[in-house]
Amino acid sequence: MAFDPSSLKYDAAGLIPCIAQDHATGEVLMLAWMNADAVARTLETGRVTYWSRSRAAFWIKGETSGHVQRLVELRLDCDRDCLLALVNQTGPACHTNRRSCFYTAVREGDEVVISQPMA
Amino acid sequence: MAFDPSSLKYDAAGLIPCIAQDHATGEVLMLAWMNADAVARTLETGRVTYWSRSRAAFWIKGETSGHVQRLVELRLDCDRDCLLALVNQTGPACHTNRRSCFYTAVREGDEVVISQPMA
Repeated sequence: MAFDPSSLKYDAAGLIPCIAQDHATGEVLMLAWMNADAVARTLETGRVTYWSRSRAAFWIKGETSGHVQRLVELRLDCDRDCLLALVNQTGPACHTNRRSCFYTAVREGDEVVISQPMA
Repeated sequence: MAFDPSSLKYDAAGLIPCIAQDHATGEVLMLAWMNADAVARTLETGRVTYWSRSRAAFWIKGETSGHVQRLVELRLDCDRDCLLALVNQTGPACHTNRRSCFYTAVREGDEVVISQPMA
């Protein structure tokens, strides 16, 4: 069946969450949002493209930072309301310069920072 | 710093997305939603507990199906608006009886089912 971005289920703002996962290591890097056009652009260009809710604009990941996400494979879930992008991530995915945005763990009731910014 | 579920950023409905990842294999299993009480219950009980948007009720994963998610570690992202739960998943995470909800890939413009229900 041909994939049509408009067949996904978007929220009231026209957005769908997309998890970015490192294709090689399986590390979950980040979660951001796409609209139907961002999904289409991601597939057309192979460059993972989100919709920035704060800037209300397309966000071609790495366009200014150089920390590009190349799409390896896009997957959708059973409810068609969440995406999983397997990516080749150049450098850090996080704006704090860490590889992953999920660098804080809850351990014994405390927040613990478990990874440091990349050199 | 002590972790306080109310310190997370919830959406207008009081919810935050939570990615469940297999602790052992790194496979991304599903994404569902939690409210602050569900976050607290997950940490207190070690049983991953979502908020079901369709039922408007707590959803203790596996309570009826037996496909329990035991929490190994809860992580939060840099913006505090997304959670990552590392879990021990008993059986399938997906209601289709597949291990992961992300069993459909987009390949050369087509939707391709890449995993089958568990026996």
